[in-house]
Amino acid sequence: MNPQQPSEGSGLNRDRADEVMKAKGLHALIATTPENIHYVIGSQLRASNWTMQIYAILPADPSARPCIVIPTNRLGVVAQFGITNVDIFAYSDFFVEGTIEGKPSTADIDLFYSLLQTTVVHQGAADALFAALKHLGIENQPIGIDEMRIAPDIMARVQSALPDGAVVPAYKLFRHIRLVKTPFEIERLRRAAEVNERIEQELIHLIAAGVHEKELADHYRIAVMRAGGTPAMTAVGAGPRSALPLIENYFHTIEQGDQIRFDLCMQLDGYWGDTGRTVVAGEPTPWMKKHFNAVKSGWETALEAVRPGVRASDVFHAAVSRVQQEGIPHYRRQHVGHAIGLELYDDLTISPGDQHILEPGMVLCVEVPYYELGAGGFQIEDTVVVTPDGYEFLTHMERKLFIK
Amino acid sequence: MNPQQPSEGSGLNRDRADEVMKAKGLHALIATTPENIHYVIGSQLRASNWTMQIYAILPADPSARPCIVIPTNRLGVVAQFGITNVDIFAYSDFFVEGTIEGKPSTADIDLFYSLLQTTVVHQGAADALFAALKHLGIENQPIGIDEMRIAPDIMARVQSALPDGAVVPAYKLFRHIRLVKTPFEIERLRRAAEVNERIEQELIHLIAAGVHEKELADHYRIAVMRAGGTPAMTAVGAGPRSALPLIENYFHTIEQGDQIRFDLCMQLDGYWGDTGRTVVAGEPTPWMKKHFNAVKSGWETALEAVRPGVRASDVFHAAVSRVQQEGIPHYRRQHVGHAIGLELYDDLTISPGDQHILEPGMVLCVEVPYYELGAGGFQIEDTVVVTPDGYEFLTHMERKLFIK
Repeated sequence: MNPQQPSEGSGLNRDRADEVMKAKGLHALIATTPENIHYVIGSQLRASNWTMQIYAILPADPSARPCIVIPTNRLGVVAQFGITNVDIFAYSDFFVEGTIEGKPSTADIDLFYSLLQTTVVHQGAADALFAALKHLGIENQPIGIDEMRIAPDIMARVQSALPDGAVVPAYKLFRHIRLVKTPFEIERLRRAAEVNERIEQELIHLIAAGVHEKELADHYRIAVMRAGGTPAMTAVGAGPRSALPLIENYFHTIEQGDQIRFDLCMQLDGYWGDTGRTVVAGEPTPWMKKHFNAVKSGWETALEAVRPGVRASDVFHAAVSRVQQEGIPHYRRQHVGHAIGLELYDDLTISPGDQHILEPGMVLCVEVPYYELGAGGFQIEDTVVVTPDGYEFLTHMERKLFIK
Repeated sequence: MNPQQPSEGSGLNRDRADEVMKAKGLHALIATTPENIHYVIGSQLRASNWTMQIYAILPADPSARPCIVIPTNRLGVVAQFGITNVDIFAYSDFFVEGTIEGKPSTADIDLFYSLLQTTVVHQGAADALFAALKHLGIENQPIGIDEMRIAPDIMARVQSALPDGAVVPAYKLFRHIRLVKTPFEIERLRRAAEVNERIEQELIHLIAAGVHEKELADHYRIAVMRAGGTPAMTAVGAGPRSALPLIENYFHTIEQGDQIRFDLCMQLDGYWGDTGRTVVAGEPTPWMKKHFNAVKSGWETALEAVRPGVRASDVFHAAVSRVQQEGIPHYRRQHVGHAIGLELYDDLTISPGDQHILEPGMVLCVEVPYYELGAGGFQIEDTVVVTPDGYEFLTHMERKLFIK
């Protein structure tokens, strides 16, 4: 139940990163959001507030090690997560006394102690960043900086220290690179999906008249924590509330005949799980059956379309038309799925405006939900990885209208 | 165990906000980080990734309501948290069908339905923001924008649409305003401190030879979740690992004679708790007693200095000198405490460089930890609110070297 596991390698797609840096003429990509930092070094390093700056530098030179810029007080965290594949550029004062020579210790203390002896401490985050660029021999070269989590005053200082136009925004470049997953990442996403599904199955078992939505949401969140994950949006909507899209508060006790819609999001070792199902407490009405079947048909049609070479928007149109034909003629939707990875929404949505062409290694949540206020809501959401021939499921629960 | 509770009012210090806007000639302050949004409207609205933009606008005109800029799919969340004290400027498509006339419903569905009928949907976040400024009649006036969580391309678009120099960075302005807490906020911080302490007391009860650090950390995190909070940095270090400052991974099983250092951070209804104690499993050695007493003396000296009119750096120097006199002559420290609120580190640290003058209503975590690798670590951390006469504790656990 750690917020993150020790570093076991990185999910970095080095080929795509190289391609991007070459195409843009960049000598490094600098990550600033926790997700992109995780991508570069294999571990998330979190800040304790918005003023604390943490960066990870991925050099274009394949023989150079990544660098991290951290406040000195994070050296112990680096040691605890066994991050040894990076050069460290620390900033700001932090005092730890003592020596471990001949004393009881642990591997992380040994590493921390050695980092304390060897790490040069710079005055501020920008100074540490400049030192890292100098160390890499690229202090006047074009670089990409993930613009989303660097403080704007530091970004301005970096821009003015480098030649005009040498700093380009890189958040979208990271998202582009991250869109095609490596085998390491697919395994992480598989684990997240499987843990999420196991807990969703537990929720289905708990459904009965008299159970409050909140009991189910609480069960989910604690089970995710126990499994080592971090729970996020927990849509558990019963009866009239099954028609609410995002659910973050709970007011309804399940009654016999209610339909219950789940859309459950969590993070495990940095990677997201996001799965959903619909359950009826008792006998489904003809209306429920008809609408569930329409939604399921659309979901099947979306998956039939998923294979390399297909445009995301074409998957969308196929799915929506099918739902309209199969019983919900007025069906509208802004997307029928999204890429998933280190962010819950990676850089592709299966939507009318998305021109991405599917490629092997993309991991997609496919969902064709329907929300009708005053009636009910339906969800099937599964995760698939695009393969050379089509797709492979990372989720395995039955795709049916569950009856309890 | 919700990630946030329904809106019950805001902790906003309106006087300080007015003062800041008047001094800077600003017609509004625009919050973009979850903490500052919470501060303006009384509820956190979270984004599902870095590209999703959410803002809250606090107008200088006291008769105008705050405005929020949200993606349309967050309307349901607004309804679930009962946020009715704002004007809403939504952007991007989102489809929900149906009518609730004569159907079973809940209060949040009723509000959601009415919002769906009445909310104008703009194309993007910048368009929605411009519409809000126009609605407030301040579309060409100077405004402050919290620069930390607005996408830089949108910030650039806003800057170019407004007269030169009309947009000023406001993250630090929000932090300045938030430094003096309102009674509402002090009650939230009191609850967070009390819940955190109650769980810390449970951890102390669980301490025994043979218990792994991770069991204690897991107990903490699940107990925080059950209490409705969100656990964060959970420093549980036993034996040699008590000397590690930030602890986020667990490797040691408690042995008889070990000292255990706790530094426990969590968030409850948006407000942080951060408390710490030191425990010995068995009989403390003379070394432990001596060092704990030195640290405790420094902590007492810090508190004796806490009262309105005193400079933060003076509290620091008094505490550090005292620890040096009382048994740790080489004692060094970068700070002996920090302001706490909607961020774990609000805008004051009790440190050599901090020139803030203490004022009634400031809430401070006072901590004088000592870390000696190869020997052990000590912590006492308590939360106090500065009062006209001195301070009042928000924490109540005994301040002693606990013995188990």
